[in-house]
Amino acid sequence: MRYHRIPAETVRRLPVYLNALLLSLQQGKSISSSELSAIVGINPLQIRKDFSYFGGFGTRGVGYNIEKLIKKIKKILKLDSHHQAVLVGAGNLGSAVLAYPGFAAYGFQIAAAYDSDPAKIGKTINNITIEDAENIINLKKKNIKIGIIAVPRQQSQAIAQSLVNAGVTGILNFSPCRLAVPKRVKVITINIATDLARLPFYMPADKKIGFALNKRA
Amino acid sequence: MRYHRIPAETVRRLPVYLNALLLSLQQGKSISSSELSAIVGINPLQIRKDFSYFGGFGTRGVGYNIEKLIKKIKKILKLDSHHQAVLVGAGNLGSAVLAYPGFAAYGFQIAAAYDSDPAKIGKTINNITIEDAENIINLKKKNIKIGIIAVPRQQSQAIAQSLVNAGVTGILNFSPCRLAVPKRVKVITINIATDLARLPFYMPADKKIGFALNKRA
Repeated sequence: MRYHRIPAETVRRLPVYLNALLLSLQQGKSISSSELSAIVGINPLQIRKDFSYFGGFGTRGVGYNIEKLIKKIKKILKLDSHHQAVLVGAGNLGSAVLAYPGFAAYGFQIAAAYDSDPAKIGKTINNITIEDAENIINLKKKNIKIGIIAVPRQQSQAIAQSLVNAGVTGILNFSPCRLAVPKRVKVITINIATDLARLPFYMPADKKIGFALNKRA
Repeated sequence: MRYHRIPAETVRRLPVYLNALLLSLQQGKSISSSELSAIVGINPLQIRKDFSYFGGFGTRGVGYNIEKLIKKIKKILKLDSHHQAVLVGAGNLGSAVLAYPGFAAYGFQIAAAYDSDPAKIGKTINNITIEDAENIINLKKKNIKIGIIAVPRQQSQAIAQSLVNAGVTGILNFSPCRLAVPKRVKVITINIATDLARLPFYMPADKKIGFALNKRA
């Protein structure tokens, strides 16, 4: 079964549900959309709609079987097998990525890290020894398909090209720029400025502006 | 005029449009939804729908006036004035945030940074001297409303509480956990694992699985 029709916004929420469900496994066998809503902060109606894309299997008054739901979401997201990824760029951001505790829950493992700075090559961070970025092409033999780019903006396009040449088909990009890659390659860009830029919209108006606006939130 | 009815998913895309529009300012006076689509990688229909929430002001065959659109989006997102933010946690991730080049385009400036590690307090990163996290309460006098949390998961709730006590009403949270805050405070969590977890869904199936699935992308 394939799941082409699932909207991108639902795909964006599925890992959030998955994370919450994995944490809820200890608490019981089933979970209602309202209970899940309380954990993830997403409207229960939206949750039920998202789950309806892959067949409604909740039972009214009982909720969703947690284990079944985890299995289903993992299958849809192709997280039912483990994935190895490589990191390029071992600066502050890259080092934070190497130490990030959240990947294992989704079955991801960072298998190698690269940098072009001779001062960084050979160093070990979180059990990973930084290799020369010249060696990225060797990934081909390792059949690793996911690359994480945490290099300065000016270098990111060249690194994306090296990764694609080495057979990578999925890129998580931290550079605030759009990468040109072949159509078969999926890029997800994390731009922390665009996330920060959403914040003021939701913040209450400053008291100085006027009391009438104070209550919005 | 207030914009309560704009869906969260549209709000998520507005900063992406804004960024592209700011970059397009040099290229001309107007931009069509297809041209904008080519830059941001979002369907032109979706773009037109998003803009329709705050009044359709594109002209068929001519497109949108870039300057007007920038002004409008900035107003909606409350980015028409500058915002100061503080960072808590000056480890690898925090240091990367301090050096991040993308905030200025949206009018954000990091005005202070805190850590509880004596080895970090007093150090200067990108012209910001790290202060003792004990001093967070002093933010009250500075009227800074935005806090960025980049501390280890176990400390994030306590830091969120300190920020709220100091008058912060918007938090950008990098810890992979849900923060308990009063309703008036908006939290946006960046979880890089959930972003990575969306990647395999979009990646072409491995050749070993079967040639029939090869072409999806």
